[in-house]
Amino acid sequence: MNIGQQQFRTIWPVFAAGQALPHKVAVIDQTLLPHDLQIAELGNLPQMIQAIKQMQVRGAPLIGVAAAYGMALATLTDVSTAALQQAAAQLLASRPTAVNLRWAVERMLKHLLALPEPERALAAWHEAAKMADEDVAINRAIGQHGLALLQGLWAEKPIAATLPEATASEGQAQASHRLNILTHCNAGWLATVDWGTALAPIYLAHEAGLPLHVWVDETRPRNQGASLTAWELGQHGVPHTVISDNAGGHLMQHGLVDCVIVGADRVTRSGDVCNKIGTYLKALAAVDNQLPFYVAVPSPTIDGRIADGLREIPIEERDGDEVSFISGLAADGSRQTVRLTPLNTPVANPAFDVTPARLVTGIITEHGCYRTQELAGLVAKLHLDAAAE
Amino acid sequence: MNIGQQQFRTIWPVFAAGQALPHKVAVIDQTLLPHDLQIAELGNLPQMIQAIKQMQVRGAPLIGVAAAYGMALATLTDVSTAALQQAAAQLLASRPTAVNLRWAVERMLKHLLALPEPERALAAWHEAAKMADEDVAINRAIGQHGLALLQGLWAEKPIAATLPEATASEGQAQASHRLNILTHCNAGWLATVDWGTALAPIYLAHEAGLPLHVWVDETRPRNQGASLTAWELGQHGVPHTVISDNAGGHLMQHGLVDCVIVGADRVTRSGDVCNKIGTYLKALAAVDNQLPFYVAVPSPTIDGRIADGLREIPIEERDGDEVSFISGLAADGSRQTVRLTPLNTPVANPAFDVTPARLVTGIITEHGCYRTQELAGLVAKLHLDAAAE
Repeated sequence: MNIGQQQFRTIWPVFAAGQALPHKVAVIDQTLLPHDLQIAELGNLPQMIQAIKQMQVRGAPLIGVAAAYGMALATLTDVSTAALQQAAAQLLASRPTAVNLRWAVERMLKHLLALPEPERALAAWHEAAKMADEDVAINRAIGQHGLALLQGLWAEKPIAATLPEATASEGQAQASHRLNILTHCNAGWLATVDWGTALAPIYLAHEAGLPLHVWVDETRPRNQGASLTAWELGQHGVPHTVISDNAGGHLMQHGLVDCVIVGADRVTRSGDVCNKIGTYLKALAAVDNQLPFYVAVPSPTIDGRIADGLREIPIEERDGDEVSFISGLAADGSRQTVRLTPLNTPVANPAFDVTPARLVTGIITEHGCYRTQELAGLVAKLHLDAAAE
Repeated sequence: MNIGQQQFRTIWPVFAAGQALPHKVAVIDQTLLPHDLQIAELGNLPQMIQAIKQMQVRGAPLIGVAAAYGMALATLTDVSTAALQQAAAQLLASRPTAVNLRWAVERMLKHLLALPEPERALAAWHEAAKMADEDVAINRAIGQHGLALLQGLWAEKPIAATLPEATASEGQAQASHRLNILTHCNAGWLATVDWGTALAPIYLAHEAGLPLHVWVDETRPRNQGASLTAWELGQHGVPHTVISDNAGGHLMQHGLVDCVIVGADRVTRSGDVCNKIGTYLKALAAVDNQLPFYVAVPSPTIDGRIADGLREIPIEERDGDEVSFISGLAADGSRQTVRLTPLNTPVANPAFDVTPARLVTGIITEHGCYRTQELAGLVAKLHLDAAAE
C-alpha cells in the first residue's frame, strides 16, 4: 500500500550490483514506527531471527514470509541438509505461537531438501519470492471476499433519520453516514507483505468509494494499533480514530460500531481464534450488541490439527517490561522509554488469547467467508490437518 | 492505609499556628504517583477546582469530600449566600459525571445556607471534616460486607488437586492456593479518604489473613491501575500483579480469577453501573466465565433518580491527548511525556462506560450486599431518589 504517495511492500530481496542472487533482505523496521520510517537490511539468518524475535517484522503472514527469506539467507553460508535443518529449527523457536512460521519453514525445508545442494540457494530465493507474491494474492482475495460483506452491511445500515431521537447524538448521526469498523492490533499491510488481512477488505472498500471509518484499538501493551494500524491507515488516507482498548464496548453499546474485523495468529478447525490479547473481550462485546465479529486470515493460519483452542494452543507469555515500560516520542523529537508502574511491581503479560468459535460470525479466507461450523470442510478440502512432519 | 509504615489519609485540613480554623487543605497529589509522593496544599476554591479537574484528587468518594472542603475554602473569602451558591455551581461543573460531588456540594450548601453568615465558616470546616470521617466509616463497612463475600468464595474454592490435570498449569496451581481478585481502575483508599471501596474488602481480607492476590488492570488511558492501585497495594503489602486491560478475559478463561470487584461513579436504581471505561468488558468476561462481578460503592453513589444507565447517564468525553500521550519516569529519573500515536491522529476518549445490571452479581454498600433487583428497595429506604434541589 502507500506510504505518502509511494507504493511499498513490507519485505523485499536486495541485490548487490551485478549479482544474480540477492545478498540481503530489506524490511520496514516496525519497532520504529510510527515516528520513524527506516528500512533494515538483514544479511544473515541470525539477523532475521533477531528481527522476528524483536518484532521488527511481525504479523503472522509477514513472519511466515520473513522466515522463508530467513531460510534463503541461511543458504548464503551453508546449503547442506544438516545446516538447513538447523536453520529451520532456529526459525521455528523464534515465535512459538506463529503457525504461519511453521508452515513457511516446513514448505521451504521440504522444497530445498528435495534438490541437490548446488541448486538450493537459487531455489530458496525463488521460493521465498513466490511465497511473498502468493501472500499478496491471498490477501487481495481475502479483501475481495470481505468487501462483499462490508457492502452488504452498508446496504443494510439504517440512516440517521431512522434512529430514535433520544439516542441520535451528534456522534451517532455522524456515525450513521459511514460504515464503522473496529479492529484490534495490526492485521494490516504491515502485518503481511501487502494489503493485510483484516484491513484488506477496508482498503478495497475505501478504493471502491464506500464511506467508512475505522476504530483503531491502541492494543496494549505493544500498541500495534496506535502505532502501526493508525500509521498505515493514515498514510493510505483511510479515515480512522484511535481509542483505548477499554472503549470499544462502550462505542458498540451506543451504535457507533457496525462490525469488528480482526486478524489471527491461529484458527482451529472448530473456529477458535487465537489472536492478540484482548480480542476475546471485543468478541464478547460484539455478541452482546448483536454485531458481526469477523476474523480475516489466509487459509494456512487455520491449524486443522487442533480443535480446542483454549486447551491446545500454547500462549506466549512475554516480558513484563512490555507492560511496565513504554516508548514514544518526547517533545524534543527523541525516542524515550518511560516506566509506568511503581518500581519492582510484578507484571504478567500473556500476548494472545483465544476467542471461542461460538463468538465468531465468520472466518474470511482467500477462498471465501466461512461460518465456524463450515471450517472443518475447508480443512479437509485443503488438507490443513496434515501432520506436521 | 499505610505508605511504608506510616498511616495516611488522602485529604486533611491544615491549620496555621494558633488559628482555630484551617486555612488550607492538604491532599496527596495523585498525578505524581507512583513515582513521587508529594502533598499539595490548596488555599482557595479555584485551587481545589483545579485539583479536581486535573485529577490531583480523583475517585468518586474523595471528589465528594474534596468538594466539601472546597466549600469550606470558599468560606475563607465570602460567606454570603450568593458567594456560596456560586462556589457550589463552580464545583458542580468541574466533573459532570460525579454524582458524589453533587451530593456533597448540595449537602454543604443546604447546611450552610440554613445558618446565619457569621456561623458559616466554622460550620463548613466541621461539616467537611464530618463528611471525611463518615466516608472512612462507610468504606470500612463496605469492606466488612465484602470481606464476608470473599471469605465465602475462599471457603468454596477448589484446591489445586481437584483441577483436571490437563489444565493445572504451574500458574493455575499457584493461583489455586490463593483467592484471585481482578479490579479495574483505582477504587482503593486513594479514591476515598481511607480504605477505598472496591479495595476495602481486600484490605480487610488481607488483615484477616486470607491469602489473596489482586490482578490490577493498568486502566488506560490514565493508567490509574498501574500507577495508583499497584502503588497503594504495594505500600500496604498486598500481593498483586499488573496486567494490560486486554488480559483479564484470558486470565478468567484459564481459572486464574475468582471474582471481580470494581468501584463506580454512579449506579442507577436498576443496578446499571457507570464506572471507568472498560469496566463493561470485564463484566462481560466475568459472566462468560461464570464468575461473580461485584461493584462496591457508598450508598450516595446510587442515583435513585435514574433507571436506564445507558440512555440517561452522560459520559464525559475527555481530551484525546490522554490517549495519544503518556507520562512516566525516564531512565534518568525525570518525568517525561511521550507521544504514542502518529502526528495528528484523530483520537476519541470516552472516560466511562455503563455496565448493564444484568451483568452485575451484587452491589456492595455500607448497608450490605444487594442484588441489582433489590436496589430499588434500598433506594426507597434511604430516599436516594430525592429530587436534586
